[in-house]
Formats: sequence, structure tokens, C-alpha cells
Amino acid sequence: MSLVVVGSVAYDGVETPHGKVDRMLGGAATYIGLAASFFAPVKIVAVVGDDFAPEDSDLLAAHGIDLEGLEHVPGKTFFWEGKYSPDMNDRVTLRTDLNVFAGFNPKLPESYRAAPYLLLGNIQPALQQSVRAQMPSLRLAGGDTMNYWIRDYREELLETLRDWDFLLINDSEARMLSGEHNLRRAAAKVMEMGPRTLVVKRGEYGAILFADGCHFIAPGYLLEDVFDPTGAGDCFAGGFIGYLAARGVNPATGPVELQDLRRAVIYGSVMGSFCCENFGVDRFRTLTREEVEERYREFKACTDF
Amino acid sequence: MSLVVVGSVAYDGVETPHGKVDRMLGGAATYIGLAASFFAPVKIVAVVGDDFAPEDSDLLAAHGIDLEGLEHVPGKTFFWEGKYSPDMNDRVTLRTDLNVFAGFNPKLPESYRAAPYLLLGNIQPALQQSVRAQMPSLRLAGGDTMNYWIRDYREELLETLRDWDFLLINDSEARMLSGEHNLRRAAAKVMEMGPRTLVVKRGEYGAILFADGCHFIAPGYLLEDVFDPTGAGDCFAGGFIGYLAARGVNPATGPVELQDLRRAVIYGSVMGSFCCENFGVDRFRTLTREEVEERYREFKACTDF
Repeated sequence: MSLVVVGSVAYDGVETPHGKVDRMLGGAATYIGLAASFFAPVKIVAVVGDDFAPEDSDLLAAHGIDLEGLEHVPGKTFFWEGKYSPDMNDRVTLRTDLNVFAGFNPKLPESYRAAPYLLLGNIQPALQQSVRAQMPSLRLAGGDTMNYWIRDYREELLETLRDWDFLLINDSEARMLSGEHNLRRAAAKVMEMGPRTLVVKRGEYGAILFADGCHFIAPGYLLEDVFDPTGAGDCFAGGFIGYLAARGVNPATGPVELQDLRRAVIYGSVMGSFCCENFGVDRFRTLTREEVEERYREFKACTDF
Repeated sequence: MSLVVVGSVAYDGVETPHGKVDRMLGGAATYIGLAASFFAPVKIVAVVGDDFAPEDSDLLAAHGIDLEGLEHVPGKTFFWEGKYSPDMNDRVTLRTDLNVFAGFNPKLPESYRAAPYLLLGNIQPALQQSVRAQMPSLRLAGGDTMNYWIRDYREELLETLRDWDFLLINDSEARMLSGEHNLRRAAAKVMEMGPRTLVVKRGEYGAILFADGCHFIAPGYLLEDVFDPTGAGDCFAGGFIGYLAARGVNPATGPVELQDLRRAVIYGSVMGSFCCENFGVDRFRTLTREEVEERYREFKACTDF
């Protein structure tokens, strides 16, 4: 079942304790799309400039990603540069050039509108809303947001969230959005805003799923080496929605099975963990579906008691 | 199977966002002993001053804890005062009066020496060594340490660890002891120092068990309210060793089952989570074994996929 992914396609400059890359393919929609493509057919909506390299389009296309909604406009592609702390739990942004992304106004190709699944990457809430409104036959819609929208676009964000089935945010964002420090209470408040499913991402510590009055706590996969955490949260989102799309879940015909949501969280963690194993999207150049399944089984083996 | 617990019995002054208590029963041996007492008979080795209140002895005795090794000497009981940050992930020590604890030289009563299990709370490594040496028929011995001993008593600590079956430390201590940031590599280095089992505690994020070439990742229990985290790590240790003592594990007759170690970690998390639900040891005044089992089952339900 196909999945529409909206967000940034960008170039990133990244420095971690393992090295420095001046310019490489990045952006939320890129990471979400690549991760989700291991589970379901993906259609991307994003904008790039005339500097966007054919080999980067080719990589996305090689993963079966539909690029009809990838708008090419005159100007430069969104560029972000950041540097990670020695333990890679923090990073500073050194440069953000929105470039063509500043005028991003997502328009869905006709062939995208009937897709049943939608993942809205972290962009301005009003744009997320406009995409949601262009898709009349959605089964499941949700996405991500960030501190900037929570703080400065609160009303717009709250209006947007009202129509989402799920929200994926990190723990500090959940606290900021709800005004509650305790995650159980924070989750209860956030779910009153609309989404019936909330996934709180906790970086290397995993994630917590809240749904249907229950919660599910998933620890993070313990990596031998973290080369570059850029995009890991987006890959989590891609694995999560990709698995649900593959399962064909449909809240309109009955409640989504908790077991499906739990497994979606684990697949999210699996995809996030692969993302960290190399710089940028490099791990996805060689990753196979069999490796994904193997890591899922390893996750099970490492957490069972 | 009985368990000897060595460490501090103290009075604590604690301030958290939920309130302030000027003076209450505390200390590593107190927390470890109370938590372990839900699983196995405990024998405490510690020192207190002549200000130690009979009702505090009574609380320990009411949990079946053997107090023959609780030495009473003239002077004041160890006093510690601390204040937690608003999110309770950090704390500052406002006062440490070692008092009678400064001269602590643990002597095991004759009736303790044949006990098969030993948990060495966080005290000077040489003292931990001397206790270990007084127990010839141990099945399983291990304990805790801290940054101070790792930094300033490194050789003494390394000599001590050589004879331990297991070590329980937090993630920053594991990194400091090994000189490795990555926890998988840190664990491998620490286990070369002696302990065949390593538990890395991660506070609210749970714990990771390393044993037998495998690891087990346990998320933290998600509490509705954290009133006071003081002693949670010690209660984790108490639940961990208490469960293993109750199971009667014996590495001399065959490898300890990984399933037992995994469950011991979960019981450790369970006891740590109860500890946070009230100030000091208060939650243990009313806690029942049935509540412990219920939370263990809840843990299972919240982590299964």
C-alpha cells in the first residue's frame, strides 16, 4: 500500500568524531522515504534546486521511490551544516540555507492523491495541513514536528494535529508541547490534541508508544559504532509508517492492532540504527531487506525475558 | 539462600520538586537490603552511631534482615544531604558528614561467613576486598563502585574487581572505568577486568546486561510520578542479587542461565521503580511481594512485541 512522504530533500554538511563530510544527500523526506521504501512503495513530495545531482535522484529511484512530486526549481537546494558533540548526543547547527525550500508549497501530483498512507515530515504546520487536505482517501496520516513550531506556531500546530492519527516526536518536544515533565502525563495531554497514537522518540534509549490506553517501551538497539546520527529519527519514522503501510492497517475498518503498532516501533528502531552506521544515507546504498529482518530478530533476542 | 549486604546505613536529607525531608533513613546497604529482602534472607554489615533510631532498626528487622552485623559505635551516623534538579536527572550534594562511617572496617559475624551470596555496596575497594576474603563459601559475589574510586583508587579497584562475578555500575562509570565511550566496547573492556557479568544501569532508561558474549537491553519502567530517586540504583542491585539468591544460582556447578540473569535485571528495575514512588525507603513500608510480581508482569506486558 503506497505511502506519501512530505518534507525536505537537502544537502548536509556533517562533522562527527568519526569524520567530516562537506556535502551529502540529506533531508527528512530523503531519510523517511529511504527507510520506508524497504517496506512499502513511497511517493515523495519535496523541492530541490537546479544543483540537485542526478546520482541523488538515481539513488531514490533505485529504491523504487516515486519522484513525480519532487519539484525542481531554479536556485539552490536546502543546505544544512552541523557538528556533533564528542558523545554525539548533542549537535550545533553551523549553517542553514533554506534556498529553494523557503518557497516550498507542496503540490501533490494527481497520481499521489489516492494513496492511503501519509507521513508529514517536519515542516511548517500549515503546509502539513494543506497536504493532508489534498488526500481524501487516507487511511492513516501523521508526522513529526519540532520545538520551533511548538513554540512559535502553537495554534497552527494544534489545528494541524487535530486531524492526525499519529504523532512522532522526541521526549523534549513532548514535554514542551504538553507542558508536563512526566512522560506518561505528557503523552495523555498530547493525545487529547488529536493523535490517537503517540510515539515518543528517545534517541539511543529507544522509544515509547502510547495507544489505546496502553504504552509500549522499546529500548534502543545497542550499536557497536555510531558514525553519524543524522537522520536517525526520520528513519525511525520511515520504518514505523512503512511497516504499517505494508500491513495495510486501516483504522476505518477496526482498531489498529497494538501488536502491529509495537512491531512498527521496533522496525522504526531497526531503521534508525542502520542509519547511524554510516555517514548520511550511505548505509541504505547496500542495506537489504534480509538484513532488516535479521536485526529485527536480534532485537527480539536482546530484549526477551 | 541468604545474602550478605555490605555498605552504608545512613541518614539523608533530600529535596526534590515534590518536597523536602530533613532527615530520613538511607544508605546503600539499607536500600539494597530492603529491596533484596523481598526475595531472600538478608544479612547486613554496616556501622551506625548512637543516634540511630530504634524504629529504623525495627523497619529493617520487620523485613527479616539480620542485624547482627550492624555495628553500633559512639558518635553520629553517616549523614548525606542533597537536592535534585527540577527534572530529577541531576542532583547536588549539599553536605556529607561521614561521622562513624569514616572508621568503618567491616567485620563479619561468624554466622554470616557461610552465606553463599554477597553484594558489596559502594565503599572503598580495599574494604570490599576484605569482606570478600572473609567469606570462603561464596557462590556469587559482586557489587557496585563509583567515579571517586575509579579515578583515585584505580589499582585498588582493579585488584578488587578481579574476584567479582558481577559488577553493577552506571553508564558514565562504565565509560570512565574502560576509557571507551561506546557501551558495547566499554563492557567488553570492563569484563576483561574480572566480572563475567556486567550490568550497566541507565537510570530512567533502564539497564543493559552483558554476559556470556550476549547482551540484554531492558528499558526503564515508566513511572506515573517520581517522588525521590534516592536509592533507586541500590534497590536495582538489591532486586538483582535478591532474585539470583532466591533462584539459588551457582556458577560452580554450571553456567548461570541467561534467562535468570535477564529476569534478575527486570526484578532490579521493578525494585528501583518502587523506590522512586515515595521519599526515602517509605515505599518499602507497605510494599508487598504480590505488588512486586504484578509490576514484573506489567513490565512484561509493556515490553513484549
